[in-house]
Amino acid sequence: MSAPSNKAFEPPVTAAILVIGDEILSGRTKDKNIGYIAEFLTNIGIELREVRVVPDLMDEIVSALNAIRSRYTYVFTTGGIGPTHDDITADAVACAFGVSIDYDPRAVAMLSERFPPDQLNEARMRMTRIPAGADLIANSVSKAPGFRIGNVHVMAGVPAIMQAMLDVVAPTLKTGVKILSETVRAGLREGDIGTPLAAIAAAHPDTAIGSYPFWSETGPDTNLVVRSRDPEKLMQAVAAVQAMVVTERARLKG
Amino acid sequence: MSAPSNKAFEPPVTAAILVIGDEILSGRTKDKNIGYIAEFLTNIGIELREVRVVPDLMDEIVSALNAIRSRYTYVFTTGGIGPTHDDITADAVACAFGVSIDYDPRAVAMLSERFPPDQLNEARMRMTRIPAGADLIANSVSKAPGFRIGNVHVMAGVPAIMQAMLDVVAPTLKTGVKILSETVRAGLREGDIGTPLAAIAAAHPDTAIGSYPFWSETGPDTNLVVRSRDPEKLMQAVAAVQAMVVTERARLKG
Repeated sequence: MSAPSNKAFEPPVTAAILVIGDEILSGRTKDKNIGYIAEFLTNIGIELREVRVVPDLMDEIVSALNAIRSRYTYVFTTGGIGPTHDDITADAVACAFGVSIDYDPRAVAMLSERFPPDQLNEARMRMTRIPAGADLIANSVSKAPGFRIGNVHVMAGVPAIMQAMLDVVAPTLKTGVKILSETVRAGLREGDIGTPLAAIAAAHPDTAIGSYPFWSETGPDTNLVVRSRDPEKLMQAVAAVQAMVVTERARLKG
Repeated sequence: MSAPSNKAFEPPVTAAILVIGDEILSGRTKDKNIGYIAEFLTNIGIELREVRVVPDLMDEIVSALNAIRSRYTYVFTTGGIGPTHDDITADAVACAFGVSIDYDPRAVAMLSERFPPDQLNEARMRMTRIPAGADLIANSVSKAPGFRIGNVHVMAGVPAIMQAMLDVVAPTLKTGVKILSETVRAGLREGDIGTPLAAIAAAHPDTAIGSYPFWSETGPDTNLVVRSRDPEKLMQAVAAVQAMVVTERARLKG
Protein backbone atom coordinates (compact mmCIF):
# COMPACT_ATOMS: atom_id res chain seq x y z
CA MET A 1 0.00 0.00 0.00
CA SER A 2 1.20 3.49 -0.78
CA ALA A 3 1.27 6.15 1.91
CA PRO A 4 -1.95 8.14 2.14
CA SER A 5 -1.90 11.57 0.53
CA ASN A 6 -1.30 14.45 2.91
CA LYS A 7 -3.36 16.77 0.73
CA ALA A 8 -6.32 16.62 3.10
CA PHE A 9 -4.20 18.28 5.77
CA GLU A 10 -2.81 21.01 3.55
CA PRO A 11 -4.38 24.48 3.54
CA PRO A 12 -6.91 24.93 0.72
CA VAL A 13 -5.77 26.36 -2.60
CA THR A 14 -7.82 29.54 -3.14
CA ALA A 15 -8.55 31.91 -5.99
CA ALA A 16 -10.24 35.16 -7.00
CA ILE A 17 -11.44 36.40 -10.39
CA LEU A 18 -11.07 39.99 -11.55
CA VAL A 19 -13.33 40.80 -14.51
CA ILE A 20 -12.19 43.97 -16.29
CA GLY A 21 -14.53 45.78 -18.64
CA ASP A 22 -16.99 48.66 -18.99
CA GLU A 23 -19.14 46.48 -21.24
CA ILE A 24 -19.94 44.10 -18.37
CA LEU A 25 -20.85 46.95 -16.00
CA SER A 26 -23.07 48.65 -18.60
CA GLY A 27 -24.90 45.36 -19.18
CA ARG A 28 -24.14 45.48 -22.91
CA THR A 29 -22.14 42.25 -22.63
CA LYS A 30 -23.35 39.52 -20.28
CA ASP A 31 -20.40 37.86 -18.56
CA LYS A 32 -19.95 34.18 -19.35
CA ASN A 33 -16.53 33.73 -17.79
CA ILE A 34 -17.25 33.83 -14.05
CA GLY A 35 -19.45 30.72 -14.06
CA TYR A 36 -17.09 28.86 -16.39
CA ILE A 37 -13.97 29.58 -14.34
CA ALA A 38 -15.83 28.86 -11.07
CA GLU A 39 -16.83 25.40 -12.25
CA PHE A 40 -13.41 24.74 -13.77
CA LEU A 41 -11.61 25.60 -10.52
CA THR A 42 -14.02 23.60 -8.35
CA ASN A 43 -13.36 20.57 -10.54
CA ILE A 44 -9.59 20.75 -9.96
CA GLY A 45 -9.82 21.37 -6.22
CA ILE A 46 -9.27 25.14 -6.17
CA GLU A 47 -11.71 27.19 -4.08
CA LEU A 48 -12.98 30.36 -5.71
CA ARG A 49 -13.43 32.78 -2.82
CA GLU A 50 -14.16 36.15 -4.42
CA VAL A 51 -15.03 37.83 -7.71
CA ARG A 52 -14.76 41.52 -8.58
CA VAL A 53 -15.86 43.34 -11.71
CA VAL A 54 -14.21 46.72 -12.35
CA PRO A 55 -14.30 49.26 -15.21
CA ASP A 56 -11.52 50.01 -17.73
CA LEU A 57 -9.89 52.51 -15.36
CA MET A 58 -6.25 52.22 -14.30
CA ASP A 59 -6.71 53.10 -10.61
CA GLU A 60 -9.67 50.74 -10.20
CA ILE A 61 -7.86 47.80 -11.78
CA VAL A 62 -4.65 48.39 -9.81
CA SER A 63 -6.32 48.75 -6.43
CA ALA A 64 -8.65 45.77 -6.91
CA LEU A 65 -5.78 43.60 -8.11
CA ASN A 66 -3.53 44.56 -5.21
CA ALA A 67 -6.35 43.94 -2.73
CA ILE A 68 -7.01 40.41 -3.92
CA ARG A 69 -3.63 39.11 -5.05
CA SER A 70 -2.29 39.09 -1.50
CA ARG A 71 -5.35 37.26 -0.13
CA TYR A 72 -5.61 34.23 -2.41
CA THR A 73 -3.32 31.59 -3.88
CA TYR A 74 -4.23 32.62 -7.43
CA VAL A 75 -5.91 35.47 -9.26
CA PHE A 76 -7.42 35.14 -12.74
CA THR A 77 -8.24 38.26 -14.72
CA THR A 78 -10.38 38.44 -17.85
CA GLY A 79 -10.63 41.26 -20.38
CA GLY A 80 -8.70 44.30 -21.53
CA ILE A 81 -5.80 42.70 -23.42
CA GLY A 82 -6.90 43.49 -26.98
CA PRO A 83 -5.44 45.96 -29.52
CA THR A 84 -7.45 49.11 -28.75
CA HIS A 85 -7.00 52.14 -26.49
CA ASP A 86 -9.48 50.81 -23.90
CA ASP A 87 -7.35 47.68 -23.38
CA ILE A 88 -5.25 48.73 -20.40
CA THR A 89 -5.01 45.55 -18.35
CA ALA A 90 -1.32 44.82 -19.10
CA ASP A 91 -0.31 48.35 -18.08
CA ALA A 92 -2.43 48.13 -14.94
CA VAL A 93 -0.89 44.79 -13.94
CA ALA A 94 2.64 46.17 -14.49
CA CYS A 95 1.71 49.14 -12.32
CA ALA A 96 0.25 46.89 -9.58
CA PHE A 97 3.47 44.84 -9.51
CA GLY A 98 5.72 47.89 -9.83
CA VAL A 99 7.51 46.54 -12.91
CA SER A 100 8.17 47.99 -16.36
CA ILE A 101 6.27 46.98 -19.48
CA ASP A 102 7.59 46.70 -23.03
CA TYR A 103 7.20 44.92 -26.34
CA ASP A 104 8.06 41.28 -25.71
CA PRO A 105 9.97 39.44 -28.49
CA ARG A 106 8.25 36.14 -27.58
CA ALA A 107 4.83 37.75 -27.98
CA VAL A 108 5.89 39.42 -31.25
CA ALA A 109 6.94 36.00 -32.54
CA MET A 110 3.53 34.56 -31.63
CA LEU A 111 1.62 37.34 -33.40
CA SER A 112 3.93 37.01 -36.42
CA GLU A 113 2.56 33.50 -36.92
CA ARG A 114 -0.78 35.07 -37.74
CA PHE A 115 -0.05 38.50 -39.18
CA PRO A 116 2.36 39.38 -42.03
CA PRO A 117 4.70 42.29 -41.21
CA ASP A 118 2.55 44.92 -42.97
CA GLN A 119 -0.42 43.97 -40.72
CA LEU A 120 1.60 44.03 -37.51
CA ASN A 121 0.62 47.65 -36.97
CA GLU A 122 0.82 49.81 -33.84
CA ALA A 123 -2.54 48.56 -32.55
CA ARG A 124 -1.66 44.88 -32.90
CA MET A 125 1.82 45.46 -31.47
CA ARG A 126 0.01 46.79 -28.38
CA MET A 127 -0.93 43.17 -27.67
CA THR A 128 2.77 42.26 -27.40
CA ARG A 129 3.39 44.64 -24.49
CA ILE A 130 4.06 42.38 -21.49
CA PRO A 131 5.12 43.31 -17.93
CA ALA A 132 8.78 42.50 -17.13
CA GLY A 133 9.24 39.06 -15.61
CA ALA A 134 5.95 37.60 -16.85
CA ASP A 135 5.54 34.19 -18.51
CA LEU A 136 3.34 34.10 -21.58
CA ILE A 137 0.10 32.11 -21.81
CA ALA A 138 -0.34 30.74 -25.33
CA ASN A 139 -3.52 31.58 -27.24
CA SER A 140 -4.38 28.85 -29.73
CA VAL A 141 -7.39 30.78 -31.02
CA SER A 142 -6.03 34.16 -32.11
CA LYS A 143 -2.31 34.01 -31.12
CA ALA A 144 -2.14 37.19 -28.95
CA PRO A 145 -0.95 35.76 -25.63
CA GLY A 146 -2.05 36.24 -22.06
CA PHE A 147 0.54 36.19 -19.30
CA ARG A 148 1.28 35.13 -15.75
CA ILE A 149 3.15 37.30 -13.27
CA GLY A 150 3.48 36.22 -9.66
CA ASN A 151 0.18 34.53 -8.76
CA VAL A 152 -1.84 36.55 -11.31
CA HIS A 153 -3.01 35.02 -14.61
CA VAL A 154 -4.06 37.58 -17.20
CA MET A 155 -6.46 36.20 -19.79
CA ALA A 156 -8.65 37.42 -22.64
CA GLY A 157 -12.30 38.41 -22.17
CA VAL A 158 -13.64 36.61 -25.26
CA PRO A 159 -14.94 33.33 -23.76
CA ALA A 160 -13.49 30.99 -26.40
CA ILE A 161 -10.02 32.51 -26.01
CA MET A 162 -10.25 32.64 -22.21
CA GLN A 163 -11.19 28.96 -22.14
CA ALA A 164 -8.25 28.02 -24.36
CA MET A 165 -5.91 29.98 -22.07
CA LEU A 166 -7.34 28.33 -18.94
CA ASP A 167 -6.58 24.93 -20.47
CA VAL A 168 -2.96 26.05 -20.92
CA VAL A 169 -2.74 27.40 -17.38
CA ALA A 170 -4.41 24.48 -15.57
CA PRO A 171 -1.46 22.03 -15.56
CA THR A 172 0.76 24.70 -13.94
CA LEU A 173 -1.56 25.24 -10.96
CA LYS A 174 -1.18 23.74 -7.53
CA THR A 175 -4.46 21.97 -6.86
CA GLY A 176 -6.09 21.11 -3.57
CA VAL A 177 -8.34 18.34 -2.43
CA LYS A 178 -11.39 18.48 -4.60
CA ILE A 179 -14.46 19.43 -2.62
CA LEU A 180 -16.92 16.57 -2.83
CA SER A 181 -20.57 17.38 -3.30
CA GLU A 182 -23.83 15.43 -3.03
CA THR A 183 -27.30 16.77 -3.76
CA VAL A 184 -30.45 15.57 -2.01
CA ARG A 185 -33.70 16.59 -3.67
CA ALA A 186 -36.08 17.27 -0.80
CA GLY A 187 -39.49 17.18 -2.48
CA LEU A 188 -40.44 19.83 0.07
CA ARG A 189 -40.46 23.60 0.27
CA GLU A 190 -37.33 25.23 1.68
CA GLY A 191 -39.23 26.77 4.57
CA ASP A 192 -40.60 23.34 5.59
CA ILE A 193 -37.15 22.01 6.43
CA GLY A 194 -35.07 25.02 7.42
CA THR A 195 -35.17 24.28 11.15
CA PRO A 196 -34.10 20.59 11.11
CA LEU A 197 -31.58 21.39 8.36
CA ALA A 198 -29.92 24.01 10.56
CA ALA A 199 -29.56 21.39 13.32
CA ILE A 200 -27.87 19.00 10.88
CA ALA A 201 -25.55 21.75 9.67
CA ALA A 202 -24.56 22.56 13.27
CA ALA A 203 -23.92 18.87 14.02
CA HIS A 204 -21.64 18.43 10.96
CA PRO A 205 -19.06 21.21 11.21
CA ASP A 206 -16.67 19.90 8.52
CA THR A 207 -19.35 20.09 5.87
CA ALA A 208 -21.10 23.00 4.18
CA ILE A 209 -24.81 22.51 3.55
CA GLY A 210 -26.59 24.77 1.08
CA SER A 211 -30.30 24.98 0.39
CA TYR A 212 -31.50 25.99 -3.09
CA PRO A 213 -35.22 26.31 -3.81
CA PHE A 214 -36.54 25.73 -7.32
CA TRP A 215 -39.82 25.14 -9.14
CA SER A 216 -40.37 21.66 -10.54
CA GLU A 217 -43.27 20.29 -12.59
CA THR A 218 -44.94 19.30 -9.32
CA GLY A 219 -44.49 22.65 -7.55
CA PRO A 220 -41.95 24.17 -5.20
CA ASP A 221 -39.00 21.95 -4.34
CA THR A 222 -35.53 22.29 -2.78
CA ASN A 223 -32.09 20.93 -3.58
CA LEU A 224 -29.99 20.37 -0.47
CA VAL A 225 -26.30 20.36 -1.39
CA VAL A 226 -23.78 18.91 1.06
CA ARG A 227 -20.11 19.71 0.42
CA SER A 228 -16.97 18.49 2.18
CA ARG A 229 -13.35 17.59 1.54
CA ASP A 230 -13.76 14.47 3.69
CA PRO A 231 -15.74 11.65 2.00
CA GLU A 232 -16.73 10.02 5.31
CA LYS A 233 -18.01 13.24 6.86
CA LEU A 234 -19.79 14.03 3.61
CA MET A 235 -21.68 10.72 3.66
CA GLN A 236 -22.59 11.09 7.35
CA ALA A 237 -24.13 14.49 6.69
CA VAL A 238 -25.88 13.26 3.53
CA ALA A 239 -27.39 10.37 5.49
CA ALA A 240 -28.65 12.79 8.13
CA VAL A 241 -30.20 15.02 5.46
CA GLN A 242 -31.86 12.05 3.75
CA ALA A 243 -33.32 10.78 7.03
CA MET A 244 -34.61 14.26 7.90
CA VAL A 245 -36.28 14.62 4.50
CA VAL A 246 -38.07 11.28 4.90
CA THR A 247 -39.25 12.26 8.39
CA GLU A 248 -40.46 15.70 7.33
CA ARG A 249 -42.25 14.35 4.25
CA ALA A 250 -44.13 11.88 6.43
CA ARG A 251 -44.94 14.55 9.00
CA LEU A 252 -46.18 17.12 6.48
CA LYS A 253 -47.94 14.84 4.03
CA GLY A 254 -48.85 11.82 6.13
CA MET B 1 -40.01 77.35 -22.91
CA SER B 2 -39.21 75.51 -19.73
CA ALA B 3 -35.82 75.88 -18.12
CA PRO B 4 -33.32 73.28 -19.28
CA SER B 5 -32.70 70.39 -16.89
CA ASN B 6 -29.67 70.76 -14.70
CA LYS B 7 -29.18 67.01 -14.56
CA ALA B 8 -26.30 67.12 -17.04
CA PHE B 9 -24.29 69.15 -14.54
CA GLU B 10 -25.02 66.97 -11.54
CA PRO B 11 -22.56 64.31 -10.40
CA PRO B 12 -23.39 60.87 -11.78
CA VAL B 13 -25.56 58.51 -9.75
CA THR B 14 -23.47 55.40 -9.13
CA ALA B 15 -24.02 51.88 -7.89
CA ALA B 16 -22.36 48.61 -6.92
CA ILE B 17 -23.73 45.07 -6.75
CA LEU B 18 -22.84 42.60 -4.01
CA VAL B 19 -23.70 39.01 -4.94
CA ILE B 20 -23.79 36.77 -1.87
CA GLY B 21 -23.63 33.01 -2.23
CA ASP B 22 -21.38 29.96 -2.11
CA GLU B 23 -23.33 28.46 -5.01
CA ILE B 24 -22.14 31.20 -7.40
CA LEU B 25 -18.49 30.79 -6.34
CA SER B 26 -18.61 27.00 -6.68
CA GLY B 27 -20.05 27.36 -10.18
CA ARG B 28 -23.07 25.24 -9.27
CA THR B 29 -25.40 28.16 -9.96
CA LYS B 30 -24.62 30.52 -12.84
CA ASP B 31 -25.41 34.10 -11.85
CA LYS B 32 -28.12 35.75 -13.92
CA ASN B 33 -28.60 38.85 -11.79
CA ILE B 34 -25.47 40.89 -12.53
CA GLY B 35 -26.24 41.34 -16.23
CA TYR B 36 -29.91 42.03 -15.55
CA ILE B 37 -29.28 44.68 -12.89
CA ALA B 38 -26.47 46.23 -14.98
CA GLU B 39 -28.78 46.74 -17.94
CA PHE B 40 -31.65 47.89 -15.72
CA LEU B 41 -29.50 50.56 -14.03
CA THR B 42 -27.97 51.77 -17.31
CA ASN B 43 -31.48 52.26 -18.69
CA ILE B 44 -32.48 54.56 -15.81
CA GLY B 45 -29.28 56.59 -15.82
CA ILE B 46 -27.48 54.94 -12.91
CA GLU B 47 -23.84 53.95 -13.50
CA LEU B 48 -22.84 50.53 -12.23
CA ARG B 49 -19.22 50.93 -11.16
CA GLU B 50 -18.32 47.72 -9.36
CA VAL B 51 -19.52 44.19 -8.64
CA ARG B 52 -18.33 41.82 -5.94
CA VAL B 53 -19.24 38.19 -5.33
CA VAL B 54 -18.60 36.86 -1.81
CA PRO B 55 -19.33 33.58 0.01
CA ASP B 56 -21.93 33.00 2.74
CA LEU B 57 -19.50 34.12 5.46
CA MET B 58 -20.34 36.90 7.90
CA ASP B 59 -16.95 38.65 7.88
CA GLU B 60 -16.69 38.59 4.09
CA ILE B 61 -20.16 40.06 3.59
CA VAL B 62 -19.68 42.76 6.23
CA SER B 63 -16.30 43.92 4.99
CA ALA B 64 -17.29 43.94 1.31
CA LEU B 65 -20.51 45.81 2.09
CA ASN B 66 -18.75 48.42 4.19
CA ALA B 67 -16.08 48.88 1.52
CA ILE B 68 -18.59 49.61 -1.24
CA ARG B 69 -21.50 51.33 0.49
CA SER B 70 -19.38 54.41 1.22
CA ARG B 71 -18.10 54.66 -2.35
CA TYR B 72 -21.30 54.61 -4.40
CA THR B 73 -24.73 56.24 -4.37
CA TYR B 74 -26.45 52.86 -4.10
CA VAL B 75 -25.62 49.24 -3.33
CA PHE B 76 -27.78 46.30 -4.44
CA THR B 77 -27.25 42.91 -2.83
CA THR B 78 -28.63 39.60 -4.08
CA GLY B 79 -28.90 36.31 -2.23
CA GLY B 80 -28.93 34.99 1.30
CA ILE B 81 -32.36 36.10 2.54
CA GLY B 82 -34.15 32.73 2.50
CA PRO B 83 -35.32 30.53 5.41
CA THR B 84 -32.26 28.32 5.95
CA HIS B 85 -29.16 28.47 8.14
CA ASP B 86 -26.93 29.57 5.24
CA ASP B 87 -29.06 32.70 4.69
CA ILE B 88 -27.14 35.24 6.76
CA THR B 89 -27.40 38.39 4.67
CA ALA B 90 -29.84 40.24 6.97
CA ASP B 91 -27.61 39.60 10.01
CA ALA B 92 -24.52 40.69 8.06
CA VAL B 93 -26.19 43.92 6.93
CA ALA B 94 -27.30 44.70 10.50
CA CYS B 95 -23.72 44.09 11.63
CA ALA B 96 -22.29 46.31 8.87
CA PHE B 97 -24.62 49.15 9.89
CA GLY B 98 -24.14 48.53 13.62
CA VAL B 99 -27.88 48.14 14.28
CA SER B 100 -29.95 45.44 15.96
CA ILE B 101 -32.04 42.89 14.10
CA ASP B 102 -35.35 41.38 15.14
CA TYR B 103 -38.62 39.90 13.89
CA ASP B 104 -40.42 42.71 12.05
CA PRO B 105 -44.24 42.85 12.45
CA ARG B 106 -44.64 44.26 8.90
CA ALA B 107 -42.67 41.33 7.47
CA VAL B 108 -44.64 38.86 9.58
CA ALA B 109 -47.88 40.35 8.18
CA MET B 110 -46.56 39.89 4.62
CA LEU B 111 -45.63 36.25 5.17
CA SER B 112 -48.98 35.63 6.88
CA GLU B 113 -50.66 36.41 3.55
CA ARG B 114 -49.10 33.25 2.18
CA PHE B 115 -48.64 30.88 5.11
CA PRO B 116 -51.25 29.83 7.69
CA PRO B 117 -50.05 30.10 11.31
CA ASP B 118 -49.09 26.41 11.57
CA GLN B 119 -46.72 26.82 8.58
CA LEU B 120 -45.12 30.00 9.89
CA ASN B 121 -42.42 27.92 11.55
CA GLU B 122 -39.03 28.98 12.92
CA ALA B 123 -37.38 28.69 9.49
CA ARG B 124 -39.94 30.87 7.72
CA MET B 125 -39.97 33.35 10.60
CA ARG B 126 -36.24 33.74 9.92
CA MET B 127 -37.25 35.62 6.77
CA THR B 128 -39.01 38.25 8.89
CA ARG B 129 -35.84 39.27 10.72
CA ILE B 130 -35.07 42.80 9.51
CA PRO B 131 -32.37 45.25 10.67
CA ALA B 132 -33.68 48.13 12.81
CA GLY B 133 -34.58 51.21 10.78
CA ALA B 134 -34.94 49.41 7.44
CA ASP B 135 -37.80 49.87 4.96
CA LEU B 136 -39.25 46.70 3.48
CA ILE B 137 -39.17 45.87 -0.23
CA ALA B 138 -42.35 44.02 -1.23
CA ASN B 139 -42.03 40.63 -2.89
CA SER B 140 -44.98 39.93 -5.17
CA VAL B 141 -43.71 36.47 -6.06
CA SER B 142 -43.26 34.70 -2.71
CA LYS B 143 -44.10 37.41 -0.12
CA ALA B 144 -40.89 37.27 2.00
CA PRO B 145 -39.65 40.85 1.68
CA GLY B 146 -36.27 42.40 0.93
CA PHE B 147 -35.32 45.64 2.65
CA ARG B 148 -33.54 48.94 2.23
CA ILE B 149 -31.29 50.44 4.91
CA GLY B 150 -29.30 53.57 4.17
CA ASN B 151 -28.21 53.30 0.54
CA VAL B 152 -28.22 49.49 0.56
CA HIS B 153 -31.00 47.48 -1.10
CA VAL B 154 -31.15 43.85 0.00
CA MET B 155 -32.84 41.58 -2.54
CA ALA B 156 -33.43 37.87 -3.14
CA GLY B 157 -31.08 35.73 -5.23
CA VAL B 158 -33.80 33.91 -7.20
CA PRO B 159 -33.90 35.93 -10.44
CA ALA B 160 -37.70 36.19 -10.75
CA ILE B 161 -37.99 37.49 -7.19
CA MET B 162 -35.00 39.82 -7.53
CA GLN B 163 -36.52 41.30 -10.69
CA ALA B 164 -39.87 41.89 -8.97
CA MET B 165 -38.07 43.63 -6.09
CA LEU B 166 -36.04 45.80 -8.47
CA ASP B 167 -39.28 46.99 -10.06
CA VAL B 168 -40.49 48.02 -6.59
CA VAL B 169 -37.23 49.78 -5.78
CA ALA B 170 -36.76 51.62 -9.08
CA PRO B 171 -39.26 54.49 -8.52
CA THR B 172 -37.52 55.33 -5.21
CA LEU B 173 -34.09 55.80 -6.79
CA LYS B 174 -32.49 59.07 -7.73
CA THR B 175 -31.61 58.70 -11.39
CA GLY B 176 -28.95 60.46 -13.40
CA VAL B 177 -28.67 61.49 -16.99
CA LYS B 178 -28.98 58.35 -19.02
CA ILE B 179 -25.77 57.52 -20.81
CA LEU B 180 -26.46 57.57 -24.53
CA SER B 181 -24.90 54.91 -26.68
CA GLU B 182 -24.42 54.39 -30.41
CA THR B 183 -22.85 51.35 -32.04
CA VAL B 184 -20.91 51.47 -35.32
CA ARG B 185 -20.27 48.10 -36.93
CA ALA B 186 -16.83 48.41 -38.47
CA GLY B 187 -16.74 45.54 -40.95
CA LEU B 188 -13.04 45.33 -40.06
CA ARG B 189 -10.88 43.47 -37.59
CA GLU B 190 -10.22 45.22 -34.29
CA GLY B 191 -6.48 45.33 -34.89
CA ASP B 192 -7.00 47.07 -38.24
CA ILE B 193 -8.49 50.16 -36.61
CA GLY B 194 -6.97 50.33 -33.13
CA THR B 195 -4.57 53.16 -33.96
CA PRO B 196 -7.01 55.63 -35.61
CA LEU B 197 -9.64 54.72 -33.01
CA ALA B 198 -7.27 55.69 -30.19
CA ALA B 199 -6.77 59.08 -31.86
CA ILE B 200 -10.54 59.61 -32.02
CA ALA B 201 -10.91 58.60 -28.37
CA ALA B 202 -8.20 61.10 -27.37
CA ALA B 203 -9.89 63.87 -29.38
CA HIS B 204 -13.31 63.29 -27.77
CA PRO B 205 -12.69 63.34 -24.01
CA ASP B 206 -16.35 63.52 -22.93
CA THR B 207 -17.14 60.24 -24.61
CA ALA B 208 -16.13 56.66 -23.86
CA ILE B 209 -15.36 54.52 -26.89
CA GLY B 210 -15.27 50.75 -26.55
CA SER B 211 -14.17 48.22 -29.13
CA TYR B 212 -15.73 44.73 -29.10
CA PRO B 213 -14.58 42.11 -31.61
CA PHE B 214 -16.96 39.38 -32.73
CA TRP B 215 -17.31 36.77 -35.45
CA SER B 216 -19.98 37.34 -38.07
CA GLU B 217 -21.05 35.15 -40.98
CA THR B 218 -18.49 36.98 -43.13
CA GLY B 219 -15.56 36.65 -40.71
CA PRO B 220 -14.04 38.75 -37.93
CA ASP B 221 -15.78 42.05 -37.28
CA THR B 222 -15.83 44.73 -34.58
CA ASN B 223 -18.55 46.74 -32.86
CA LEU B 224 -17.40 50.23 -31.88
CA VAL B 225 -19.58 51.57 -29.07
CA VAL B 226 -19.54 55.30 -28.35
CA ARG B 227 -21.08 56.42 -25.04
CA SER B 228 -21.69 59.89 -23.63
CA ARG B 229 -24.12 61.85 -21.50
CA ASP B 230 -24.02 64.70 -24.02
CA PRO B 231 -25.97 64.01 -27.26
CA GLU B 232 -23.98 66.54 -29.30
CA LYS B 233 -20.59 65.20 -28.23
CA LEU B 234 -21.86 61.67 -28.82
CA MET B 235 -22.82 62.44 -32.42
CA GLN B 236 -19.53 64.22 -33.10
CA ALA B 237 -17.57 61.17 -31.94
CA VAL B 238 -19.86 58.79 -33.84
CA ALA B 239 -19.33 60.82 -37.02
CA ALA B 240 -15.57 60.65 -36.54
CA VAL B 241 -15.75 56.88 -36.02
CA GLN B 242 -17.92 56.40 -39.11
CA ALA B 243 -15.58 58.48 -41.27
CA MET B 244 -12.56 56.55 -39.98
CA VAL B 245 -14.21 53.21 -40.74
CA VAL B 246 -14.97 54.28 -44.34
CA THR B 247 -11.38 55.45 -44.81
CA GLU B 248 -9.84 52.30 -43.34
CA ARG B 249 -12.11 50.02 -45.36
CA ALA B 250 -11.04 51.76 -48.56
CA ARG B 251 -7.39 51.64 -47.56
CA LEU B 252 -7.41 47.94 -46.61
CA LYS B 253 -9.71 46.56 -49.26
CA GLY B 254 -9.37 49.04 -52.13
